[in-house]
Amino acid sequence: MSFYDKLKFTEDGLIPAIVQEQSTGRVLMMAWMNRASLETTIATGKTHFWSRSRQKFWMKGESSGHTQRVKDIAFDCDGDTLLIQVEQIGAACHEGYKSCFYRSVEGKEHGFKVTEKQLETPEQIYGKK
Amino acid sequence: MSFYDKLKFTEDGLIPAIVQEQSTGRVLMMAWMNRASLETTIATGKTHFWSRSRQKFWMKGESSGHTQRVKDIAFDCDGDTLLIQVEQIGAACHEGYKSCFYRSVEGKEHGFKVTEKQLETPEQIYGKK
Repeated sequence: MSFYDKLKFTEDGLIPAIVQEQSTGRVLMMAWMNRASLETTIATGKTHFWSRSRQKFWMKGESSGHTQRVKDIAFDCDGDTLLIQVEQIGAACHEGYKSCFYRSVEGKEHGFKVTEKQLETPEQIYGKK
Repeated sequence: MSFYDKLKFTEDGLIPAIVQEQSTGRVLMMAWMNRASLETTIATGKTHFWSRSRQKFWMKGESSGHTQRVKDIAFDCDGDTLLIQVEQIGAACHEGYKSCFYRSVEGKEHGFKVTEKQLETPEQIYGKK
């Protein structure tokens, strides 16, 4: 049986993919895939997604160079979420942090704090616009 | 500024929450929260979600006893995904595995393999139906 038979895509044909750095266990990001981006991810060994806001197929790192080499693809009991282990080149976040989850809730007033150092600025990654 | 101002809920008022075991880095599950379940999670220190299939507010472990004690709540750059660090009691998965992501893709034929041992059967967790 193909694992594709176990997956449930949304009405829009999408499935959320959690991306984790295999060497550190750090959760880097969550993005959406359609079947084509999942197939391309498997075929090429580099993560590809579907951007809901831009309605566009994209390879992670296509403009930043911060690609993700796939080490493992797991799926959950309900078949509606993917967990992808990767080797991350540079920062995963377009804000220049290793992980997109660089802020945590702090204190009783529902404030927050930055928990990681910024590796690069967006201008350093993408150039000045 | 409250971190709630940074969050973007879907049109249905939901936000996906990735749950990670803090001590091991194992990603346990992904489930959806609405604002009420997030507020209750923060107030009680135990994870609460919104079930889309059952249209129901629920506490993780309410029937299994496998609760999750919250250690940290992070949110991503776009404010549309949460990452919650927890201390997990027992198996997170209703199938009796520590993690819901207990299967990984294997081989060129898109097969898959089970990558964790089953800690308990669903019958042991929930009783015979």
